[in-house]
Amino acid sequence: MRTMFTLDQNDLPKRWYNVLPDLPTPLDPPLHPGTREPIEPAALLGLFARTCVEQEMSTDRFIDIPAPVLDVYRLWRPTPLMRAVHLERVLETPAHIYFKYEGASPTGSHKTNTAVPQAYYNKLEGTKALATETGAGQWGSALAFACQTFGMDCTVFMVRSSYDQKPYRKAMMSVFGARVHASPSRETRAGREALARDPNSFGSLGLAISEAVEAALAGQGTKYSLGSVLNHVLLHQTVIGLEAEQQMQSAGEFPDVVVACVGGGSNFGGLSLPFYRAARERKQATRFLAVEPTVCPSLTRGEYRYDFGDTAETTPLLRMHTLGHAFMPPPIHAGGLRYHGMAPIVSRLVEDGIVEPLAYDQLDVFASAVLFARSEGIIPAPETAHAVHAAVEIARECARTGDEKTILIGFSGHGHFDMGAYTAYLSGDLVRAEAGSNACTGTPAGARLYC
Amino acid sequence: MRTMFTLDQNDLPKRWYNVLPDLPTPLDPPLHPGTREPIEPAALLGLFARTCVEQEMSTDRFIDIPAPVLDVYRLWRPTPLMRAVHLERVLETPAHIYFKYEGASPTGSHKTNTAVPQAYYNKLEGTKALATETGAGQWGSALAFACQTFGMDCTVFMVRSSYDQKPYRKAMMSVFGARVHASPSRETRAGREALARDPNSFGSLGLAISEAVEAALAGQGTKYSLGSVLNHVLLHQTVIGLEAEQQMQSAGEFPDVVVACVGGGSNFGGLSLPFYRAARERKQATRFLAVEPTVCPSLTRGEYRYDFGDTAETTPLLRMHTLGHAFMPPPIHAGGLRYHGMAPIVSRLVEDGIVEPLAYDQLDVFASAVLFARSEGIIPAPETAHAVHAAVEIARECARTGDEKTILIGFSGHGHFDMGAYTAYLSGDLVRAEAGSNACTGTPAGARLYC
Repeated sequence: MRTMFTLDQNDLPKRWYNVLPDLPTPLDPPLHPGTREPIEPAALLGLFARTCVEQEMSTDRFIDIPAPVLDVYRLWRPTPLMRAVHLERVLETPAHIYFKYEGASPTGSHKTNTAVPQAYYNKLEGTKALATETGAGQWGSALAFACQTFGMDCTVFMVRSSYDQKPYRKAMMSVFGARVHASPSRETRAGREALARDPNSFGSLGLAISEAVEAALAGQGTKYSLGSVLNHVLLHQTVIGLEAEQQMQSAGEFPDVVVACVGGGSNFGGLSLPFYRAARERKQATRFLAVEPTVCPSLTRGEYRYDFGDTAETTPLLRMHTLGHAFMPPPIHAGGLRYHGMAPIVSRLVEDGIVEPLAYDQLDVFASAVLFARSEGIIPAPETAHAVHAAVEIARECARTGDEKTILIGFSGHGHFDMGAYTAYLSGDLVRAEAGSNACTGTPAGARLYC
Repeated sequence: MRTMFTLDQNDLPKRWYNVLPDLPTPLDPPLHPGTREPIEPAALLGLFARTCVEQEMSTDRFIDIPAPVLDVYRLWRPTPLMRAVHLERVLETPAHIYFKYEGASPTGSHKTNTAVPQAYYNKLEGTKALATETGAGQWGSALAFACQTFGMDCTVFMVRSSYDQKPYRKAMMSVFGARVHASPSRETRAGREALARDPNSFGSLGLAISEAVEAALAGQGTKYSLGSVLNHVLLHQTVIGLEAEQQMQSAGEFPDVVVACVGGGSNFGGLSLPFYRAARERKQATRFLAVEPTVCPSLTRGEYRYDFGDTAETTPLLRMHTLGHAFMPPPIHAGGLRYHGMAPIVSRLVEDGIVEPLAYDQLDVFASAVLFARSEGIIPAPETAHAVHAAVEIARECARTGDEKTILIGFSGHGHFDMGAYTAYLSGDLVRAEAGSNACTGTPAGARLYC
């Protein structure tokens, strides 16, 4: 039985899909951090490449992928779509489980899909260096790789808890020529202030963003690059869903359920937005499930309101689901999901009832991850494992009801750099964090767990 | 420009290719370790599955791949064939560089290709558990995965130097349910004796084999499984070359040079043997290059004679290139290439002038590995990096001569579990080992480096 659905490289999508003109409710504009008035695009040009700013606001439904970006995409794209028949057998489920495998990328996750165009546009516009933050290290490695490809410098502020958990991620960034600092660091004012408040801080994405933004503004010819949340990042990631649409077609199926993990929302958006459009055209009631950790539950427990993207209040304010920009999530192994906010596009679709959020504890998530690894051979990244767990839960429900659902998982990356997490899980060192989570989500704005 | 040549899963080879009937000179028979007379197949059944023993001696040119093995192969096969155009550009070479990417397997290397059928045949014949050794951990993870798939126990003796260098490999084996011991261990007589001689021994593949064989013979319903060297292992690996042949055809090319690294010879054999047959049929003078480390130079400096496969003299004697079964290679990062012997098939083809051996120092090898990673995005395993370096050298020669050679690299695996090696290389901690190597190869039988 055929279980791998490749796509000829000639069928690699030539355009990204922009959901903005197809949203049922338009997004609220980003606000200037000083004036709290809608921000002028020009005000963003100090941080971002002009083309990225244009794409952020664009109402074009499709945007061409530049030839030099396609040239780099071809190092690993199209990625395979797999049917997880071994997992189906273990679960004795009538469900058909597919997963789109972004672990095939150079750095092992979907993040390179946006790192490459962001580096390319910056290079075109004369930027010499990029600064960024990274949680689990997936985004940092991706931007390091992309900068390397276009001959640019790269500085990465890596959240301390991940920096300590994942030394090989730092090694990978070094192979790709990046400079890596644990965040909070002594390189920036934001970092030094955080260390003054708590010398043992394990950091957060919000804080690392403050450091990277500060470094970008201070650096000569340096700009900032964000790996999730923003519209143009989700746009670049739609290459995943556009490929998967063709591949599901060659498998003769259309998903009843599309499920992916959400940290900032780019992996989820990249897979699900093209299917959101396709489902509307087919008038099919596909469900879109966004899965987050219970200890950082921005969609399931956060408020939908304007908030800063970072801890130091330097970014524009976005209307999104947020736990408050001072929220400090506990150091769970899914470092890529430790973000207080959420992509405005994903937040909007949740408000409009199109995307359903779910939250799981990492202990349940790792149980499904090990089940997946033992049946399908691929060890999921802890982030990805959240989506895997949701799919396993649905497939088990199908086994009870006899429902032959087609489930599509956004398999954002492999866990080769997260094996310490698996060692902790298998040796019983991971604790259920739900109690802490409830405590946290009772006071979502700024509560700090484990203190 | 198309750079990825996938193969439809329906075109997955259904048969392995057995080179034995096509060898220009037949192999000399294995000898019994006690009598030194040709060994009866029955004498091997205590260690190996009957089907593996039959395949070891088979003169059938093609052998069917069992359906349940194909079913597991489909978790990752066919693997992609890639053209390394970015590397070609960096080298400004007219050469066409292709690589067959076995890093796409569950455990990140070609080793699963034989682990799966070996576990399957054992399962069919009633074996409950398998014991084995592993160098870099690639073989141990592959057998752990395969045993997991068929519901068998797995015990792995991992060479101490790799056990210390690669903790995540151990974690991966644990995810797949295997028990892992650092070798030399206190679990076996061979291990305890080695520790008595040298409590700080960093181990060797030869010694780990002794431990695994001893554990297999002592265990209830337990057999032994070898990840390289033997004919049936090379047989199973030919799925690589058989796929690559179809993919090169769809790229409209045939290789002038096939290059792969050699530890025990299975990766090299798996890619090159089908091309050896195809080149003969086309009457094409393809070169076959087998690349080893200068510090463990069995093909370039060893003797072609009968020798034991292991340190404790428990295995049958094979006629092969050997540095002597007591040879203790230094703890280089390409742990998978630290073996004193070589597959009899590869050794025979070297003697007959069909395969050309080459040896490189790891410092040169890592320079090419980083070059490859920075242009193609994939970080090679240190073993694989030996083949990459040879290909880079040839491509550079082509740049000088203007020769438009087509080079095919056997890309046996990625380096995600070897990042410590890259950190050591980038921080200048790796030393050139050539002086040691010369010292060693002057006295190839039993010489010990670094002492």
